[in-house]
Amino acid sequence: MNRVQVIPTRGHPLVYASWLRAKNRPTLLIYGHYDVVSDAPREQWRSQPFSPTIKDSNLLGRGSSDDKGQLFSHLKALESYLKTSGALPVNVKCIFEGEEEIGSTHLLPFVARNTRALRADAAVISDTRMISRQQPAISYSQRGGLRAELEVRGPRQELHSGAFGGAVLNPVQALCEIVASLHDERGRVTIPGFYDAVRKWSDTERTYMARSGPNDEKILEDAKVERGWGEAGYTLYERTTIRPALTLNGIVGGHHGPGVKGVIPDRAVAKLSFRLVPDQDPEQIGELFRDHIARITPPAVASSVRTFSPVQPALVDRNHPAVRKASFAYKQGFGAFPVFLRSGGSIPVVNTFRKFLGIPTVLMGFGLPNDRMHAPNEKFHLPNFYRAINTSIWYMAAQGKPE
Amino acid sequence: MNRVQVIPTRGHPLVYASWLRAKNRPTLLIYGHYDVVSDAPREQWRSQPFSPTIKDSNLLGRGSSDDKGQLFSHLKALESYLKTSGALPVNVKCIFEGEEEIGSTHLLPFVARNTRALRADAAVISDTRMISRQQPAISYSQRGGLRAELEVRGPRQELHSGAFGGAVLNPVQALCEIVASLHDERGRVTIPGFYDAVRKWSDTERTYMARSGPNDEKILEDAKVERGWGEAGYTLYERTTIRPALTLNGIVGGHHGPGVKGVIPDRAVAKLSFRLVPDQDPEQIGELFRDHIARITPPAVASSVRTFSPVQPALVDRNHPAVRKASFAYKQGFGAFPVFLRSGGSIPVVNTFRKFLGIPTVLMGFGLPNDRMHAPNEKFHLPNFYRAINTSIWYMAAQGKPE
Repeated sequence: MNRVQVIPTRGHPLVYASWLRAKNRPTLLIYGHYDVVSDAPREQWRSQPFSPTIKDSNLLGRGSSDDKGQLFSHLKALESYLKTSGALPVNVKCIFEGEEEIGSTHLLPFVARNTRALRADAAVISDTRMISRQQPAISYSQRGGLRAELEVRGPRQELHSGAFGGAVLNPVQALCEIVASLHDERGRVTIPGFYDAVRKWSDTERTYMARSGPNDEKILEDAKVERGWGEAGYTLYERTTIRPALTLNGIVGGHHGPGVKGVIPDRAVAKLSFRLVPDQDPEQIGELFRDHIARITPPAVASSVRTFSPVQPALVDRNHPAVRKASFAYKQGFGAFPVFLRSGGSIPVVNTFRKFLGIPTVLMGFGLPNDRMHAPNEKFHLPNFYRAINTSIWYMAAQGKPE
Repeated sequence: MNRVQVIPTRGHPLVYASWLRAKNRPTLLIYGHYDVVSDAPREQWRSQPFSPTIKDSNLLGRGSSDDKGQLFSHLKALESYLKTSGALPVNVKCIFEGEEEIGSTHLLPFVARNTRALRADAAVISDTRMISRQQPAISYSQRGGLRAELEVRGPRQELHSGAFGGAVLNPVQALCEIVASLHDERGRVTIPGFYDAVRKWSDTERTYMARSGPNDEKILEDAKVERGWGEAGYTLYERTTIRPALTLNGIVGGHHGPGVKGVIPDRAVAKLSFRLVPDQDPEQIGELFRDHIARITPPAVASSVRTFSPVQPALVDRNHPAVRKASFAYKQGFGAFPVFLRSGGSIPVVNTFRKFLGIPTVLMGFGLPNDRMHAPNEKFHLPNFYRAINTSIWYMAAQGKPE
């Protein structure tokens, strides 16, 4: 590549690289992220999470699929061109970040400030999943998100549960009551106004989704659970894509180590994440949530809410030429045209590329549903890796041709 | 002392010592425990929890009040006799254990098996609290107890909260819903049958309690909380003594460390403790709890319950001669006769002494309500320590006199 720069931020650095010698040809912006989520619970790993291990036809390790392995497919495609013909068929800008899993805090303002340097005709991101080994998929919608921490404080310090048990409201209990009340018995989030801005999709779109997307059985199989759950009136695919969700990521309070301790804890904390859909606004959802928690907190305890990492939902026009070219590339790389899927996850930068660079992002995923992204024993299917490189090579060639 | 023995058990050892040269005099059994609860949350300590530190007129450290400091008062009283007159006014057997905080698992069967060796006329335990520095108290009832761990399991492993959020029941959420449902809006435990065996006390007894015991304001002040909570129709003193309670000691599930992790957790665990009153039976309460949890667990998750450390509630006749002698000793040591109080806590061995040795236990507490037992910065008020030694000296003298 012409230039490779490591750009410091107040968080993890960005990596920028470019090759711009394809005169009069379009420019492709390749995004990926090198950060990963924690390896906890570590004891459930059957290999070292940070020492990549090949087992059968999989590469095991944290980030193997999300997103180092997928990112690396594009690098190998670039290398293939440069080591053979010595040139790329398209101008390329790469921007890699280290904060995707925590909301791309520093990338988003960087993009907003550097629209000229990042100018491109389309972006490609490989950080999503295919349907199966044989069936590629392009994601045309991503949920947005918002993180929250909810803390409930009770007595100034832990109290003896014998001396005071039955007379003092327990903050763990109060937190459980608050959390329990956030969903009704039909699986809907009870925060007033939460659904007000949720876009209603036409029967045509829902029929398309039902035809192209995974059915309930497939989703349960991917999750390895026996029963679904959630908002009545929607399929599991719809619940995870066109409907918002509130998920408890974790909870902690009082004595939770080995052994016993007879106390009324002084505080308890829940970590939550919202997954949001058009046209919900993360900031506004944060306000609704804060107001609601303040309203329902029992007077005998205190609560506080911290929200962070707002991510806007994103939509990509599935008829855009850049998407059609990706479709062709998949056919070359995997022997099958992709289906068009909505994703339940969030890639913060997609909306930012649209808003500040005015370009569509092709979400060209190479992961598999059972890659255990974010979970112990994450893996990347190696045949997918090789086909991904091939697909990327074909995609660059297609993107290099002017319309 | 004549004999001091360290008696191994499958857990922490027992310590037994005796001095039996007071011919034709009664025998006093002195019990105490050398184990303590954890120092967590460690960061809230202002001194080293396991390096006793004197500050102003307090001894700071884990166990300073519960129960090493109180236990030690009796040892100093014994030492005072032996170093001055060279003899004790009463035969003495000491039995100290290291598992009180986890239910006296090995002491209780040891007592049952060694009734001859432990034979005595009365037992004394200093592991309870006075009303204030000026006002001693003798506890004449102790709540029983039962510990429980409730685990809820969801997906086989953590799932990506984007991909599956909204379609899979979250075990943290399910645990919160179960926990929240264990109390009704009037502060009553909802487990069917939970209150069936709870003894109803006469108006006379409740009037006595209201007159002799702490009022709501005093209990809130001791707990340093602004508002009470609990079962409607009872004072805070009653709620913590003659009414049972279910307390959440801790909860943990999913990602709870620093930072964020977008997952649906695979499991969540709550640690609970029941405080039970006559005539509730811990084993039976455990069965009711297990059955109830099995009944209310949503089908999309699995749950399991482990119960342990059952402790029977205990009552002591406050008119027994051994109690009257303790009353006299307090007058000598603290300048005031004690009031008779019920305790909310549990000392497992009290009921065992009654059942297997046929003797009453005098619960002669030297702790203070603000000693922060089980909490960070536990302390023992040093003037209480010196008066406790004096009181113990007077009590041994009184117990040495035949009726």
